[in-house]
Amino acid sequence: MKIEAAGAAFSPCPDRFVTEGYREGLPLLEQFEELSKIEGLNGIPFLYPHGLKDNKEMTRLCESINRSVGTICPDTYTIRKWKSGTLTNNDPKTRRESLELIKESMDLCHEVKGADVLLWLAHDGYDYPFEHDYSNKWDMLVEGLREVANYRSDVKVTIEYKAKEPMTHQYISDAGKSLLLCREVGAENLGVVLDFGHSMAAGENPAEAVDLIARYNKLFHIHMNDNYRSWDDDLLTGSVHFWETLEFFYRLAAVGYDGWFVIDIWPSRIDGVKALKESVKRIQSFDKLARELPMKEISRLQAQNKTMDILELLREKTTRLH
Amino acid sequence: MKIEAAGAAFSPCPDRFVTEGYREGLPLLEQFEELSKIEGLNGIPFLYPHGLKDNKEMTRLCESINRSVGTICPDTYTIRKWKSGTLTNNDPKTRRESLELIKESMDLCHEVKGADVLLWLAHDGYDYPFEHDYSNKWDMLVEGLREVANYRSDVKVTIEYKAKEPMTHQYISDAGKSLLLCREVGAENLGVVLDFGHSMAAGENPAEAVDLIARYNKLFHIHMNDNYRSWDDDLLTGSVHFWETLEFFYRLAAVGYDGWFVIDIWPSRIDGVKALKESVKRIQSFDKLARELPMKEISRLQAQNKTMDILELLREKTTRLH
Amino acid sequence: MKIEAAGAAFSPCPDRFVTEGYREGLPLLEQFEELSKIEGLNGIPFLYPHGLKDNKEMTRLCESINRSVGTICPDTYTIRKWKSGTLTNNDPKTRRESLELIKESMDLCHEVKGADVLLWLAHDGYDYPFEHDYSNKWDMLVEGLREVANYRSDVKVTIEYKAKEPMTHQYISDAGKSLLLCREVGAENLGVVLDFGHSMAAGENPAEAVDLIARYNKLFHIHMNDNYRSWDDDLLTGSVHFWETLEFFYRLAAVGYDGWFVIDIWPSRIDGVKALKESVKRIQSFDKLARELPMKEISRLQAQNKTMDILELLREKTTRLH
Amino acid sequence: MKIEAAGAAFSPCPDRFVTEGYREGLPLLEQFEELSKIEGLNGIPFLYPHGLKDNKEMTRLCESINRSVGTICPDTYTIRKWKSGTLTNNDPKTRRESLELIKESMDLCHEVKGADVLLWLAHDGYDYPFEHDYSNKWDMLVEGLREVANYRSDVKVTIEYKAKEPMTHQYISDAGKSLLLCREVGAENLGVVLDFGHSMAAGENPAEAVDLIARYNKLFHIHMNDNYRSWDDDLLTGSVHFWETLEFFYRLAAVGYDGWFVIDIWPSRIDGVKALKESVKRIQSFDKLARELPMKEISRLQAQNKTMDILELLREKTTRLH
Repeated sequence: MKIEAAGAAFSPCPDRFVTEGYREGLPLLEQFEELSKIEGLNGIPFLYPHGLKDNKEMTRLCESINRSVGTICPDTYTIRKWKSGTLTNNDPKTRRESLELIKESMDLCHEVKGADVLLWLAHDGYDYPFEHDYSNKWDMLVEGLREVANYRSDVKVTIEYKAKEPMTHQYISDAGKSLLLCREVGAENLGVVLDFGHSMAAGENPAEAVDLIARYNKLFHIHMNDNYRSWDDDLLTGSVHFWETLEFFYRLAAVGYDGWFVIDIWPSRIDGVKALKESVKRIQSFDKLARELPMKEISRLQAQNKTMDILELLREKTTRLH
Repeated sequence: MKIEAAGAAFSPCPDRFVTEGYREGLPLLEQFEELSKIEGLNGIPFLYPHGLKDNKEMTRLCESINRSVGTICPDTYTIRKWKSGTLTNNDPKTRRESLELIKESMDLCHEVKGADVLLWLAHDGYDYPFEHDYSNKWDMLVEGLREVANYRSDVKVTIEYKAKEPMTHQYISDAGKSLLLCREVGAENLGVVLDFGHSMAAGENPAEAVDLIARYNKLFHIHMNDNYRSWDDDLLTGSVHFWETLEFFYRLAAVGYDGWFVIDIWPSRIDGVKALKESVKRIQSFDKLARELPMKEISRLQAQNKTMDILELLREKTTRLH
Repeated sequence: MKIEAAGAAFSPCPDRFVTEGYREGLPLLEQFEELSKIEGLNGIPFLYPHGLKDNKEMTRLCESINRSVGTICPDTYTIRKWKSGTLTNNDPKTRRESLELIKESMDLCHEVKGADVLLWLAHDGYDYPFEHDYSNKWDMLVEGLREVANYRSDVKVTIEYKAKEPMTHQYISDAGKSLLLCREVGAENLGVVLDFGHSMAAGENPAEAVDLIARYNKLFHIHMNDNYRSWDDDLLTGSVHFWETLEFFYRLAAVGYDGWFVIDIWPSRIDGVKALKESVKRIQSFDKLARELPMKEISRLQAQNKTMDILELLREKTTRLH
Repeated sequence: MKIEAAGAAFSPCPDRFVTEGYREGLPLLEQFEELSKIEGLNGIPFLYPHGLKDNKEMTRLCESINRSVGTICPDTYTIRKWKSGTLTNNDPKTRRESLELIKESMDLCHEVKGADVLLWLAHDGYDYPFEHDYSNKWDMLVEGLREVANYRSDVKVTIEYKAKEPMTHQYISDAGKSLLLCREVGAENLGVVLDFGHSMAAGENPAEAVDLIARYNKLFHIHMNDNYRSWDDDLLTGSVHFWETLEFFYRLAAVGYDGWFVIDIWPSRIDGVKALKESVKRIQSFDKLARELPMKEISRLQAQNKTMDILELLREKTTRLH
């Protein structure tokens, strides 16, 4: 399996209350050392701008710990200047800057053979009723995505939907809208990141989202975590929703997904390294357990509406409830 | 304005606890008499099968109280035999029956010059993880909608999305998926019913949904009600969400919607006739108030990110808070 | 373990759309026959009025299948006349009738040696802002509960909290308010039914509610089911929330609960008898698995904030993720 | 009216993504200058430790702009060392430190004649199932609150409930539990802060919470803001929920509340000063409008279950829908 870890495990994990963060963060090079010790983690995602000497340094660093470059993520979300949006910013100059940032990320991605370019448009949204003219914003969104996707077709661009946070409403909020955007833009290299927790918090069943997105050949990337359905809590994979996580891997197997998984958790109060190790273990184990399930028998029971038999089978084969 | 009322105001409004309902229902003919007294209600929707002597009776009844025939709604939701789905039922015979029912409704709609045919696929969904093979179900859904839309292009077919109830998950759950389906089917006469409450309970801002659906020329019909965002409570229009209801009418004006509004409430414990009258009043008043707002000024403030000024303007011009 | 099953498994399970229900219901006597075949089900709850020849018939029926009488439940929720409330009804006569019904249930409970009298005040709530004077309603609620609890101290009266459905707001909505009521009334025989799903839908962690209610010696009864956190879906125990159900049993063991469990599900589309059998199996298995957990070790890890180690331990000991 | 403003309007409003914040913050003294210009703001709340030269400086500063000292808020939430709790921390030394901090705040409050001491126990909670022994934690909570309340009876201590954020579960999560704690501790000076948004996000109707908390004479303080019911969005008062905000003020008038209101918003992307001015205006206007409502007539309609007439009256008297 191809597994990456986002950087939060080594960051101070600050929030709006504890702005100093819940622990000391690690410098980038020490993060690499820690990551190199975690078996099963074979990719490293990078934010862009990356703060390294140059792009070659990125390849060198990854090679030095025998890892691939994973996702390249243009920083559309940690910088103040995007506070009123990137691709949908009312100011044409700021909009242009965000487009350039994304294109540079694409060039970088191509150069370092990264997995893809991730677009999370955190500030392209609104907080209050009447704050926006939605048609106007949607026009800008489509136009921006089209320009980006067409910039170079040899790099995949993946949009990460999320319903809210940091704004109360983000435009690219769920699987349906993401796919609709992809179809309107109509570029082969534009696809979707399915973040398990974002899907849950959008009121979806992530396993159903797998099938829907795969149907349109847009399942480009997966983010793993868990939450309590109403917010992006970024908890450990499968720590809250055992069955729905299992079904998620079951459907991934069914549609033949063979891409990357990003461990996207926010371990502010727990041991970051242990959290990563247990996350790798869980991703591998859920995948294994899902593939061991009797798919033919389950399909047969599904076709006969025998839901109770499915529940019994699952309890017996996946838990120690006996 | 073109306003219809669904029949719940005159039904006993039973639920899973009070199966006898909260009051006596009215026979169909007496319902007509009551409806005829409510000014502003100029359309009558019908369930199909309609239980009338014949289709001509429908036209005659409506003409007798000087009303138009509104939506024709094939009964895909009150009958036990659909309990495992209509267009996505595993049993080909049941699936076929549902297709025939919908086609008959389309013929009827054409004959009586109804507004459109409403599809609410209440039982095309699931309750438990692992209950369905989603790809399989989505295939059936697309195929069924395609057959229906292509049956005759001179009748509009409108799909009503809803995230849950009576099942915990319905396939056509939100605006994005509805539009995605419309685009995959690709028929001009297939569109969307935007139910204010369903949109709220799907985690959407209904006003934003107006723009999105209108963008693709699929805003075929509107249902009005209100709720507390987590369930389809079917309360009186604007009784909970004043601003979001106002913004809904504001965006309807902006995109130039001139179609029907259905009053879709569930007045189990309140006076049904009063509830309809107040609903008509509210739909008319929200529309009027929305159109009186200074659209140019609001657009200017939106373009300048002057959200606080918008909030102040709204408070002054739409409420008695001064 | 002491396990009862509510009657829904043999009812047509109607709802507001499919008022005829999703299947044929069973007559009371045939229900008994079915129940007698389900091992592990050792109690029978009764609605009051019970529709039997007389109270002795109740004892006789239960004895005939070697079961105990479980909860006696005054019918405060299926009858139209309670539509504006029971103990908080504005009409003193209706209020009085509800008090009498509850007292008769208490007499019956004593006579047939039932477990307790369940109070679910489904219609004591409201739908709209400004509908009620809450202080006035709370006064009536306290007064009513006090009269009931003091009527006879040899029968336990247990209040079942639920946040919503059939009304959008019920007064006795969560664990905190339930305990507050118990403490204001101050009667030893007044306690709380903890319904797993109601607790989830009230935004609580049911396991935490166990400890809170037990702290005040008010954990009188347990209802088992599951849902998706936003509504009382009444799904099969542990079918959605594996860990939280397991923790629920873990805390029940910790506080020494030895009372009844009611299987309170709504199996409208699944096989009712299978659903009951699987529910019994699950209640027994979750209880067993919870008791097999190394409580001392978990306590030690909890005291040291070693959350990650707890998650690892749980994965290994309770699932087949390895 | 007695109105205070929390400091967020002049802070950079950082969050977990934009850690530099959405704008430059103002130094404390400049904040005072800005606050002095906002009419209607007559109190200033302080975090403790306050960072001023000494306590007298606090009085002097407030007097210099002709304002009172409002709430004193011990800093139980922005400092890393509380990350595993304050009053419920497993480490007795940290627990003791938090108790001392609160007591010092009480001394300060007495010295500067502050309104009260606010306790928001942000980190006394948990993220994962099985993370805590809840009985143990509740014991510590009761014990801590008792020690604090008994430290000096001449200072009011007010607990602010919140269901989640920054943890997924906080112990003092809703009105019922808050009152239960107050009653178990049994100290006259221990009461509750009712934060409108926290109440909404806890699934409550804040207006109902007013009556409940006032019933037990525990309504010590009010925080004003708004949100979309699922999270503490800290939006402008009444910007989302017009009717529920109006009813909130209506019930405050009904129970005779005459204490302080804190404007507790998080204006990261909007003009902070404008947001405060509009908030003052809204608090004053909602209060005025609520008091102008015909309370006797509404009471009469409530007593007769005439909900529809209430809705009509409200529309006419409080909005421009006509």
